[in-house]
Amino acid sequence: MIQDYKRKDDKLDKNARKVEIRHLREKLVNQQQTIREPKLPVIVLVEGWDCAGKGNLINELICEMDPRFYSVKNFDRVSESNERYPFLKKFFDVLPENGKFLFMDTGWMEDVVGKYLRREISKEEYERRVESCSIMERQLRDNGYVLVKLFLHISRKEQLQRITALREDRDTQWRVSYDDLWQQQEYDRFLKTYDAFMEATGKTSPWFVLDGESRKKALYDALLAITGTVEKAIENGRYVGKATGKKFPLLGGPSQKDADLTATIDPEEYKKELKKLQKKLRDLHNQIYRKKIPVVICYEGWDAAGKGGNIRRLAYPLDPRGFDVIPIASPTPGELARHFLWRFWTKLPRSGHVAIFDRTWYGRVMVERIEGFCSEDDWQRAYGEINEFEKELTDWGTVVLKFWIHIDPDTQLERFEARQNTPEKQWKITDEDWRNREKWPQYEQAVEDMLQKTSTEYAPWYIIESVDKKYARIRTLQIVTDALEKAVEENVVRGIKSQWPKKKEKK
Amino acid sequence: MIQDYKRKDDKLDKNARKVEIRHLREKLVNQQQTIREPKLPVIVLVEGWDCAGKGNLINELICEMDPRFYSVKNFDRVSESNERYPFLKKFFDVLPENGKFLFMDTGWMEDVVGKYLRREISKEEYERRVESCSIMERQLRDNGYVLVKLFLHISRKEQLQRITALREDRDTQWRVSYDDLWQQQEYDRFLKTYDAFMEATGKTSPWFVLDGESRKKALYDALLAITGTVEKAIENGRYVGKATGKKFPLLGGPSQKDADLTATIDPEEYKKELKKLQKKLRDLHNQIYRKKIPVVICYEGWDAAGKGGNIRRLAYPLDPRGFDVIPIASPTPGELARHFLWRFWTKLPRSGHVAIFDRTWYGRVMVERIEGFCSEDDWQRAYGEINEFEKELTDWGTVVLKFWIHIDPDTQLERFEARQNTPEKQWKITDEDWRNREKWPQYEQAVEDMLQKTSTEYAPWYIIESVDKKYARIRTLQIVTDALEKAVEENVVRGIKSQWPKKKEKK
Repeated sequence: MIQDYKRKDDKLDKNARKVEIRHLREKLVNQQQTIREPKLPVIVLVEGWDCAGKGNLINELICEMDPRFYSVKNFDRVSESNERYPFLKKFFDVLPENGKFLFMDTGWMEDVVGKYLRREISKEEYERRVESCSIMERQLRDNGYVLVKLFLHISRKEQLQRITALREDRDTQWRVSYDDLWQQQEYDRFLKTYDAFMEATGKTSPWFVLDGESRKKALYDALLAITGTVEKAIENGRYVGKATGKKFPLLGGPSQKDADLTATIDPEEYKKELKKLQKKLRDLHNQIYRKKIPVVICYEGWDAAGKGGNIRRLAYPLDPRGFDVIPIASPTPGELARHFLWRFWTKLPRSGHVAIFDRTWYGRVMVERIEGFCSEDDWQRAYGEINEFEKELTDWGTVVLKFWIHIDPDTQLERFEARQNTPEKQWKITDEDWRNREKWPQYEQAVEDMLQKTSTEYAPWYIIESVDKKYARIRTLQIVTDALEKAVEENVVRGIKSQWPKKKEKK
Repeated sequence: MIQDYKRKDDKLDKNARKVEIRHLREKLVNQQQTIREPKLPVIVLVEGWDCAGKGNLINELICEMDPRFYSVKNFDRVSESNERYPFLKKFFDVLPENGKFLFMDTGWMEDVVGKYLRREISKEEYERRVESCSIMERQLRDNGYVLVKLFLHISRKEQLQRITALREDRDTQWRVSYDDLWQQQEYDRFLKTYDAFMEATGKTSPWFVLDGESRKKALYDALLAITGTVEKAIENGRYVGKATGKKFPLLGGPSQKDADLTATIDPEEYKKELKKLQKKLRDLHNQIYRKKIPVVICYEGWDAAGKGGNIRRLAYPLDPRGFDVIPIASPTPGELARHFLWRFWTKLPRSGHVAIFDRTWYGRVMVERIEGFCSEDDWQRAYGEINEFEKELTDWGTVVLKFWIHIDPDTQLERFEARQNTPEKQWKITDEDWRNREKWPQYEQAVEDMLQKTSTEYAPWYIIESVDKKYARIRTLQIVTDALEKAVEENVVRGIKSQWPKKKEKK
């Protein structure tokens, strides 16, 4: 693709191009306003060669724009051994709000290709990440994002000239990094890999290759690509994707029908087990910290099922420096104006840390589905998007555990009434709880669908019977300690499942 | 203070203390609810010796609490040479919302004392930072925060025993860091310095020294200190501080009266100057990036004065990787629920970067004052708080420039009407603009007060006459380039004004 790039359409003379650029810039400035009403978020990804002039191009693009409605992000190169999160997190973190522009000074192409060619990740992991990028791009499109991908191209010779010029001037020589020199030397390998990356990620949104050897031409083509894509998006209105029908390694259950709510534990036995399991968990927390394994524990369940008390017993033995309990309430305006997983991506645990989510991204297929806070397409599509999200986490070595804290309607009624009648507990019960209770059958169906469609081999659901809360606490502690023990035993280093083949023994 | 600490009140036997702890924990859990209504934010700062059991203490404090209403933060040790922001930023960043608890696993004491004893900062800078901590504590109190400061004390001998025990066990030896060993060796110097720090920062809120050699006793005393302080705060209601009357190095102006609104520039001259100054700014941006000087540029001004266009001309020559334009709108609920400077602290530029604020913290003494969004005490106090904030920035080597973009009411009317009559510009004019216009005299007074009370030697105000917008653009560019040139010439390294005395020449 890049090789095929030829300077085409070079008929415009210098003055005509100047006029055109002025018009297109005006158009872009106006589009800042026209994308607000249809709530379109626009991401302009600028990739390309070192010294191709990416920063300058972005500057020329934004110079007339209103800073209230765009932002620019660039990403420092971080070596794989210093990464503390799944590689996609940094890109999700900066997603723009609806109605705003984001310009990215390099992004997932540079990150993935660079790490691969620097031998920081294996070929296998490289290919996995390319696939992850495609998935992200599709998810963004399906959730209404407009993506414009630009690649600023210069030849090997031109790059060498620019590097040489920078190095000859004492004021600019510091700008040439080891990485630039290395890319110059490895130009052909980069070319081949950039090409393959474009090929693999060109499906949901096309790449535009720009001629970096002519500033004005590149600017003109970039403006054409951006304003053209945005114009089309405004005409078509915000895109809402359908479920993809993609297959996941589903476990096909558990089902609420199989839960044995009479399960109970003897109070003496409980005390003993609790102490034993908490001690075990404390030790395991130390080990996952040292091995840098990230852990995500998800709590969902009926109101008054006992989530809070369950979480506290789990958190008690953990070192507060190594975990967070993350309570999830209804989304803020800023969260509503972004991809529904954004507020979870931004709260993921660092490698070696534990994040306990008190309610989760499953709100999408429960309360949002039932209350109509999103369209049917949105929640139908969400099962697959969630499976992909959790796959990304577990592929990076995260332990993901999901608990449905389960009770029956009678038990809930008892507990609601008890809360109502105890002054210190009244704040715990609201009108909303009573309203939700009336929708028990709808929720029951939504829970069943969720358990069927998102219990995967890599991130299974567990139904935790919680009519006896003590029993429930021991169950979750058991499942967590078992899972962590297994993770510690496996040869996992810093979150990435050991990806390099073991050295062959010398004969 | 620490030396004076004796185990007192040790009359409770083991069982009685157990019962008391249970009661106090219940009280703390209830206080999570009772602080919500009076909107009290509570910060529990846990400082103390390495290996004193700070993490464990926090864990025991939070174990019954509801994770929706508290958070725990700890701070990794970052050496001074790796700090990218003024040292207080990290503490402001994590401020809790109204009605919530924050537990800090070490904070400003450890940061300041540690860096001083490790010789990362000079004695002079150390003393300045101690003063800054006092100021922060007073500001927090005045803005309604409840602060409980705990120090977990163990003797030198006890620390040695704990370190030795950890090192003897293969599973725990990794937990002993070089820093721990070094503190053990330097115990006496730490003791003296901790003591001095407590002495200096004990005025607005007292320190509680806890006996780290007895877990239960420390827990009991911590619970007493926290619940007691919170109880008193609930009784007294949210505290609102008065202006302190502290003196600042004020310049006593400029005044709007002295502005010459007929100032103008010839269009040809403008083009030439613009080009020249933008080129100069581009070069300077490179240099401040290399010298790691942070820059904060503040824009305030009348509606339609031409802020946006002015900012764009300033931003145009800057490398997008090294600057941000930060538009300030009305605060979000999360911002309203915190110290009014919080949303600015969190947006400060990294060392070597430029932040251009399109409207600023001066909203406190302008729109919030005039619209009654805060109390009179709040905005009267804010002048001093803002001067302190800007002092903290400039002491760290930040260049702070403040522009009041000035026009007269007739010019504003003309521009409002032009916007109204130009379809593409109509979005720029709202009913609010017209309403604000009616309050011109009140705003004029507020602007005058602001210019008088916050134009300091270290962070001066400039009135930019902007009836001729071109003239205004050249003026700001001139001021910015002059200031940056001066900053580059001074021997400033990484944001801290060179704090170590120069080596004496050998004779």
